[in-house]
Amino acid sequence: MNNNVNYPNNAGTVNNPNNAGNVNNPNNPNDPNANKVDNTARINAIAKEFVNYYYQTFDADRKNLAALYRPMSMMTWEGVQLRGGEAIIEKLASLPFQKVGHKITTTDAQQSLPHVNALVIMVTGQLLVDEETKPQQFSQTFQLVEDNGFFVYNDVFRLNYA
Amino acid sequence: MNNNVNYPNNAGTVNNPNNAGNVNNPNNPNDPNANKVDNTARINAIAKEFVNYYYQTFDADRKNLAALYRPMSMMTWEGVQLRGGEAIIEKLASLPFQKVGHKITTTDAQQSLPHVNALVIMVTGQLLVDEETKPQQFSQTFQLVEDNGFFVYNDVFRLNYA
Repeated sequence: MNNNVNYPNNAGTVNNPNNAGNVNNPNNPNDPNANKVDNTARINAIAKEFVNYYYQTFDADRKNLAALYRPMSMMTWEGVQLRGGEAIIEKLASLPFQKVGHKITTTDAQQSLPHVNALVIMVTGQLLVDEETKPQQFSQTFQLVEDNGFFVYNDVFRLNYA
Repeated sequence: MNNNVNYPNNAGTVNNPNNAGNVNNPNNPNDPNANKVDNTARINAIAKEFVNYYYQTFDADRKNLAALYRPMSMMTWEGVQLRGGEAIIEKLASLPFQKVGHKITTTDAQQSLPHVNALVIMVTGQLLVDEETKPQQFSQTFQLVEDNGFFVYNDVFRLNYA
């Protein structure tokens, strides 16, 4: 898996992850864990870049997330199932707030199935919309698949109500 | 994808999902949405069965979750990465509580990649341990893969702190 994540509009940033030095260390072929360790670091680096890019873009102008989705992409937004980038962006753009800010609490990532360049990410965090002062907790799960950079294949979003 | 989920120790229940009648309706081959609709219902039925079984088993005796994991299964538990059913069950068994009860708030599921019988599930809910009276919010993501029934390939768990 290539750890360069070629997001549109932000290529300068995402092609220079801060921890590229770590994830590109050559494996020791005599160490049975070398590949595993390296892959874990790489998966985590991709997830971190993606999550930073995703929520920064969401908060700046969420219509610009369109390039991350494909016609086969799925999103379940508060239980509403959507298919395809067009439907997903239409839904996101229609959400009834003007300003939004996401604050990420945790990002956990794992390699998805062994025979595809894909990863599963779960994010937990808080978001504030418009003039509200009490943040709402949210959880979001992504599966990213590599195909000339990574796109979002699965996306599930939920607010967490106490 | 076969919608019978052959969990150990609970086969009687999980082989008779309440909504089997819905998910087994034959598709109309002239309806381009028939497969999609049917597949969504089936994915949701499998997810619901799995989630019910998983948390009931967790709350009754979490060591019995061993049969859901394989040597290649991954779990990230509050940021700790584990690989393989043995390590995962050892971690779950070592958690410092005797009694635990999970209450599921939401279960969202999507077909994973198109060429495998796999699904991604995100669960949000609350849990209570031992004598505590204030529930803790949690989020958990699974990827299930079919291979003589479904096993857990990816598993990410997080408590949601306000």
